[in-house]
Amino acid sequence: MKDKFYSFISQLQDKICSSFESIDGKATFKEDLWVRAEGGGGRTRVIENGAVFEKGGVNISAVHGPLAPAMQDYFKVGEVDFYACGLSLVMHPKNPMAPTVHANWRYFEMYDKSGTPIDSWFGGGLDLTPYYLFEEDAQHFHQTCKAACDRHDPAFYSEYKAQCDSYFYNQHRQEARGIGGLFFDYLKSSQQRNMEQWYDFVTDTADQFLEAYEPIIRRRKDMPYTAMEREWQEMRRGRYVEFNLVHDKGTLFGLKTNGRIESILMSLPPKVQWRYDHQPKDNSAEAALMKVLTSPRDWCATKK
Amino acid sequence: MKDKFYSFISQLQDKICSSFESIDGKATFKEDLWVRAEGGGGRTRVIENGAVFEKGGVNISAVHGPLAPAMQDYFKVGEVDFYACGLSLVMHPKNPMAPTVHANWRYFEMYDKSGTPIDSWFGGGLDLTPYYLFEEDAQHFHQTCKAACDRHDPAFYSEYKAQCDSYFYNQHRQEARGIGGLFFDYLKSSQQRNMEQWYDFVTDTADQFLEAYEPIIRRRKDMPYTAMEREWQEMRRGRYVEFNLVHDKGTLFGLKTNGRIESILMSLPPKVQWRYDHQPKDNSAEAALMKVLTSPRDWCATKK
Repeated sequence: MKDKFYSFISQLQDKICSSFESIDGKATFKEDLWVRAEGGGGRTRVIENGAVFEKGGVNISAVHGPLAPAMQDYFKVGEVDFYACGLSLVMHPKNPMAPTVHANWRYFEMYDKSGTPIDSWFGGGLDLTPYYLFEEDAQHFHQTCKAACDRHDPAFYSEYKAQCDSYFYNQHRQEARGIGGLFFDYLKSSQQRNMEQWYDFVTDTADQFLEAYEPIIRRRKDMPYTAMEREWQEMRRGRYVEFNLVHDKGTLFGLKTNGRIESILMSLPPKVQWRYDHQPKDNSAEAALMKVLTSPRDWCATKK
Repeated sequence: MKDKFYSFISQLQDKICSSFESIDGKATFKEDLWVRAEGGGGRTRVIENGAVFEKGGVNISAVHGPLAPAMQDYFKVGEVDFYACGLSLVMHPKNPMAPTVHANWRYFEMYDKSGTPIDSWFGGGLDLTPYYLFEEDAQHFHQTCKAACDRHDPAFYSEYKAQCDSYFYNQHRQEARGIGGLFFDYLKSSQQRNMEQWYDFVTDTADQFLEAYEPIIRRRKDMPYTAMEREWQEMRRGRYVEFNLVHDKGTLFGLKTNGRIESILMSLPPKVQWRYDHQPKDNSAEAALMKVLTSPRDWCATKK
């Protein structure tokens, strides 16, 4: 399973990078191969100063070795070995009308000290962070997520949509990071579903990623915008930073377990602003965004 | 003691704000009074878009009530009541040749449920975060800190300088946030020193703050700089954000215990950049800064 999934994310990285380069038309991804002292390594691909993408990365890694003490505490296990591989991407478009997108698909195995597998699971998801709300974009993104889910179980979409709303939440601001998507974790073998079936589900959501995001970035990337709208985007990017550095478990574990810092923090936006106590004007486009961030909508019901 | 210290920080806020307004010459502090639902409140003063200060705040607060569960765990106490007051300031100058400064002086009391005081202590300090290193600035700042310490105990400066270097450290980057200053905490009554004597020491460091920072900001605020130097400042401000959101205990406790978000996050810089894997050129001014951030110097020994 681990070889099969690694081969999948490796090909997916190529496919996604090539699609983003074609959308951008100017910048290309710069590749860094890195090796982890404790075992494994990764292939980081970062794009900067593009015509469409101001900054972004599409990274894969496969790491293994003894599980770090902080992770042992987190997973409530003793001294075990692990293997983890995954693809993580974050793309920050330059145009404030175009949303930031994040996605991750990962596979985890744990072994006892004799090397016997004791646990394995999938996790991941995809989510959208707009700076200006276009309902058709939110509907398209969520409906593409739902279609991928529905092929596997009619209950999945509402469950993983709710987990996404709950995970990507800036508790200290009482607002969502974005308009959500899917988030799932600890997808383990059970009587209902074996690991092969979870593989099919997880890779199906990954295969639908470009279908979900590409039409949105294509229709927003060249829209006109004002300096004030750009400033709003930079201030909202500050909330993205706050989430990733204060709340995101993946980022914090990476920082605390000797991960490759530049690969982890490639998720941070290129230009960011913080102002004191900025409030959008009543009935503005900015206020409309804040409304959906403070009370998440059901984007699939809306269209009917 | 708590009334005496609150009166001290209240007057100090006036004195510092008035000095900063006179240095800036353009912007003035905007004041927000706020009330905490659980008890107490604060007086937040923020300056933005000044001629010298791009963003900054000088805040005082005095809060009380039952100690939040997260804080009970941290202090390893049961259900107790507390009183805390303090002044916190962070100033981000516009000119990249001028350093960011941070300072805090605070007093804490704890009571059992009958209202009997069970513990009390002072904490605080002051530290400097330059974007370009001027050795005379670092020496002046540290020597002013040392002079304030030496009046109370010849051992204080080296002890609290070392604590400052160790606290304001971005572990995930293996680099200091800035060039340090003083940091002290849990200054409690002992056989050697009673609370009145700690009050004299703590307020002495606070009274020396303007002496430590004002000559530096005055000689750097109008220096010429290039767009490239401004970009370096914005990237280094990213490290300031990383420290405050990932490592700073005060910030994280504030965010997790229902503090006033805008008063806590006034510490974040106004304009910030993150680039992928940016490295300063060999032998550049940027590399010289990185050298002192990766191996802290003894700024008082240097001058001799």
